[in-house]
Amino acid sequence: MTLNVYLAGEIHSDWRERIASGAEAAGLEIDFSSPVTDHGASDDVGVALLGDEAESFWKDHKGAGVNAIRTQTAIKRADLVVVRFGEKYKQWNAAFDAGYAAALGKPIVTLHPPEHEHALKEIDRAAMATAETPEQVVGILRYVIEGTLAG
Amino acid sequence: MTLNVYLAGEIHSDWRERIASGAEAAGLEIDFSSPVTDHGASDDVGVALLGDEAESFWKDHKGAGVNAIRTQTAIKRADLVVVRFGEKYKQWNAAFDAGYAAALGKPIVTLHPPEHEHALKEIDRAAMATAETPEQVVGILRYVIEGTLAG
Amino acid sequence: MTLNVYLAGEIHSDWRERIASGAEAAGLEIDFSSPVTDHGASDDVGVALLGDEAESFWKDHKGAGVNAIRTQTAIKRADLVVVRFGEKYKQWNAAFDAGYAAALGKPIVTLHPPEHEHALKEIDRAAMATAETPEQVVGILRYVIEGTLAG
Amino acid sequence: MTLNVYLAGEIHSDWRERIASGAEAAGLEIDFSSPVTDHGASDDVGVALLGDEAESFWKDHKGAGVNAIRTQTAIKRADLVVVRFGEKYKQWNAAFDAGYAAALGKPIVTLHPPEHEHALKEIDRAAMATAETPEQVVGILRYVIEGTLAG
Amino acid sequence: MTLNVYLAGEIHSDWRERIASGAEAAGLEIDFSSPVTDHGASDDVGVALLGDEAESFWKDHKGAGVNAIRTQTAIKRADLVVVRFGEKYKQWNAAFDAGYAAALGKPIVTLHPPEHEHALKEIDRAAMATAETPEQVVGILRYVIEGTLAG
Amino acid sequence: MTLNVYLAGEIHSDWRERIASGAEAAGLEIDFSSPVTDHGASDDVGVALLGDEAESFWKDHKGAGVNAIRTQTAIKRADLVVVRFGEKYKQWNAAFDAGYAAALGKPIVTLHPPEHEHALKEIDRAAMATAETPEQVVGILRYVIEGTLAG
Amino acid sequence: MTLNVYLAGEIHSDWRERIASGAEAAGLEIDFSSPVTDHGASDDVGVALLGDEAESFWKDHKGAGVNAIRTQTAIKRADLVVVRFGEKYKQWNAAFDAGYAAALGKPIVTLHPPEHEHALKEIDRAAMATAETPEQVVGILRYVIEGTLAG
Amino acid sequence: MTLNVYLAGEIHSDWRERIASGAEAAGLEIDFSSPVTDHGASDDVGVALLGDEAESFWKDHKGAGVNAIRTQTAIKRADLVVVRFGEKYKQWNAAFDAGYAAALGKPIVTLHPPEHEHALKEIDRAAMATAETPEQVVGILRYVIEGTLAG
Repeated sequence: MTLNVYLAGEIHSDWRERIASGAEAAGLEIDFSSPVTDHGASDDVGVALLGDEAESFWKDHKGAGVNAIRTQTAIKRADLVVVRFGEKYKQWNAAFDAGYAAALGKPIVTLHPPEHEHALKEIDRAAMATAETPEQVVGILRYVIEGTLAG
Repeated sequence: MTLNVYLAGEIHSDWRERIASGAEAAGLEIDFSSPVTDHGASDDVGVALLGDEAESFWKDHKGAGVNAIRTQTAIKRADLVVVRFGEKYKQWNAAFDAGYAAALGKPIVTLHPPEHEHALKEIDRAAMATAETPEQVVGILRYVIEGTLAG
Repeated sequence: MTLNVYLAGEIHSDWRERIASGAEAAGLEIDFSSPVTDHGASDDVGVALLGDEAESFWKDHKGAGVNAIRTQTAIKRADLVVVRFGEKYKQWNAAFDAGYAAALGKPIVTLHPPEHEHALKEIDRAAMATAETPEQVVGILRYVIEGTLAG
Repeated sequence: MTLNVYLAGEIHSDWRERIASGAEAAGLEIDFSSPVTDHGASDDVGVALLGDEAESFWKDHKGAGVNAIRTQTAIKRADLVVVRFGEKYKQWNAAFDAGYAAALGKPIVTLHPPEHEHALKEIDRAAMATAETPEQVVGILRYVIEGTLAG
Repeated sequence: MTLNVYLAGEIHSDWRERIASGAEAAGLEIDFSSPVTDHGASDDVGVALLGDEAESFWKDHKGAGVNAIRTQTAIKRADLVVVRFGEKYKQWNAAFDAGYAAALGKPIVTLHPPEHEHALKEIDRAAMATAETPEQVVGILRYVIEGTLAG
Repeated sequence: MTLNVYLAGEIHSDWRERIASGAEAAGLEIDFSSPVTDHGASDDVGVALLGDEAESFWKDHKGAGVNAIRTQTAIKRADLVVVRFGEKYKQWNAAFDAGYAAALGKPIVTLHPPEHEHALKEIDRAAMATAETPEQVVGILRYVIEGTLAG
Repeated sequence: MTLNVYLAGEIHSDWRERIASGAEAAGLEIDFSSPVTDHGASDDVGVALLGDEAESFWKDHKGAGVNAIRTQTAIKRADLVVVRFGEKYKQWNAAFDAGYAAALGKPIVTLHPPEHEHALKEIDRAAMATAETPEQVVGILRYVIEGTLAG
Repeated sequence: MTLNVYLAGEIHSDWRERIASGAEAAGLEIDFSSPVTDHGASDDVGVALLGDEAESFWKDHKGAGVNAIRTQTAIKRADLVVVRFGEKYKQWNAAFDAGYAAALGKPIVTLHPPEHEHALKEIDRAAMATAETPEQVVGILRYVIEGTLAG
């Protein structure tokens, strides 16, 4: 079984790379996708491509539209959505992506430190599993694809 | 046109009451629904009804399951979902509900102070309108139902 | 059989009234809905309710969002969508509503003068019937509901 | 990420070629599709293949049926639909395709000159982005696929 | 449990009346719907309402469009579809309605004489029950609604 | 909020009555539905209504078809599905109903004694809550509808 | 554009071969599928694989179940469904397949002699095109895939 | 026609191997998937990957979540679901998978000894075929893919 896996959420740590390299080391066939993780490009894409805006609200609006093409396409294609919440920031888009995935019936794995557990209880409840480390997510991916626990 | 409107998000201010009373004053036929806004009941419902848990994670999990029956049923029935983000707290469940509603194709109205605009840009982009006050939401409801702007 | 009928398109003639009064005269149980037909209100609703905009594009954008709550809700509820194209104007929103209805599997009746036939051929093809007068539409509604041709 | 992109709308200028060549120059993996852009073939296909018609309405009807097989199949397969409105003609089929794509939840990019903004406000509102040039559309495609802004 | 029941198929015998009167005698709350059973009206409705046609194919086409508004609306609303095949005629529209209902996941009851069993094997296989008499259908309706076998 | 609740599963104890009377005592507006709980009628309905069968497999097959009209209609209408597993019997139809409800996105509450926990782990995981007594289910229903814990 | 095309209906003439060889001669990339056209195998498959039946009704039922796995899978995969009605037989399964395809939103091309036009009017109305010869169907396929009329 | 086939249910006999080797011997192109059949791994996966649990209910819950990612993904991808019930154990997850597949409209083949017929009547009714041996299932797969009965 080959999987399409969307990696949603936090863009300020290397969790995506750790999952991808772990999956590669385990020899898993996975097609990973993600939002654009270059914060500057993600914020500026609307005005950079489609013309400047005087109001920051509309600058954000234009950018969010272009980003949504990428994220919604990737979530719709995904077999599994991993949603990461980091230590900082509001990360409302991560929670939005989780809700979007849940309504589409996509299985979700949440990834976050234990101190977020109470605040994330609704989202953890909608998930099939809650992990604390990227390596645990790799373990889940291996099990889902190969049916085996790591040796 | 009678509307089913789900009021998602923040539970620490009187915004739901202001929308409901404004809608009533305007004579609008609306069936409002909402999550349980009694914070204590919402947190405790799982263990209160189904037995205690030693681990806070599972206490939260049980409670979130029961709450999800109510919230998902209400969102599925809604014609329109209003999502409120207040000044404080993570409010990840509000963002999750917005994503859930978006994937179901429900029109969304966001309601939040201007300082959240950048952090909420993805969710505002998925919304049909962004309001700052409950009274603006009432104006939208009146227009949607009666086709008129307030006199 | 009671029908929900959405009357999409042109807002500069009395075709909606003629259909509604014809249906009433025929004793048909129909719940009609329509976009906001007050042109000024429809154009201004975004800024009137949610604050002024310097750019006409964003003024239109805000207004179109609020209007879409009404129109999409009404189309989703409709059993039948009548789409009227008048003599003048671009009327792209009428064609958009027709496409929206078609993809949802709603039966469509188009209503337009014969000179638009070639330009509207794709939309007429997606329709179950093409009428030239509101009275013909009433005849269709009567047949669909009562199973009889007018005496 | 490889994309299926449907290019709907105007058939009298070279905008499709400019998007396709721009995408190729940028090395993007895109599978483009479009309606039949040979105006004569598109108008005549029904009677050419299935026999003549005395009435122009039925000639159009037959042709539109065959064309709809192609366009609806392509829209259903598309990850993204670009809808172009040119300077001239009614172009109601472009607006119809936009509505069809919107109801299917496909992300839309509109492409048109600024003078159409007011007439297209409903469709622009349903779009994730509005561009004025084919090159801007290429920029969006590059960002969606590669996550980068042009150097 | 109140049921919406669509009675598809043959229009030359009194089977609909026998089911309706049997259901009424049993005190069942059922909202029956059916195609237009006035053969003449059904054949002529297109040209009677929308103007004459020189070609019988297009006369039929216009009429079938108007009839489809009624039949497809009724099937979509139905909880249960009864499809009757009589002794005579092709009755392809009955089989079409059965396929339409099957793809929508509607439970089907077929009603036909034993001599059609082999020719109808695909449709009987898609049905939840196959009856030979209208009275058997009433028995099924009673059981489905009240959970009891007739006394 | 009024709820449609389907009570699936075991038919040899009074758990349905206890839930219904508890809900009534609590003043909850609930429309309960259930499979036919008269074991004899449920087993015999196919041959009783539609004619005898020599083979028990086909007798069962005919009966199961008629029962499925009732159960599938009720599950599709339900907002919430309660699935009860008793102490005895295979009860595969209860598990089947749970899977059917899960794939339709219906929230599920399982009700069973603790000794079934391991054997039912997949179904409990697909449920929003797992109860041991009918009274706990009433507590959940009250909370979902009224948002309050019992006094 | 590569197409999946399901060829439903009559199995007593060479129309499938004429379409397939015409498509091949035209160099079209099409993946054709069809029901089992070996009449004997199709009738006997149930009892041949799963054991004999005393009653012809159940023999047919078993066979129709196995055949339905093939036909429904093929229709669900198809981009386009061609439905052929020959001169003889009831061919109710052809009409059933047409209804099934229509409810799934698959474009349909009907293929039949003119004398069936009146009896097939509902199905022709649900089709995008009606052809009289396999060669016309090839012409449609060429146009849909390549956008050109035969030279 | 290449098929995706999910093999659900019993994990204590070699029925999956017999189907797979029979399919291979017959030269059929089939992509088989299955739940994890290593009983120990399946039971322990939750705590092995995500940390120990004091309560067996939550140990099972964690494991069932990870297993559900695999099984639900595989069922959604499947063209056909074979559900095997063995001689022993409750096998409620097999019945759950059958219900899940049925609600998704997947064709089902059940495989079980005759003594389970009465207890499995609802599930057999939802299936397209009921087999007693893996070899019969291979016969069905051959017929569905190649349209031929074994020589």
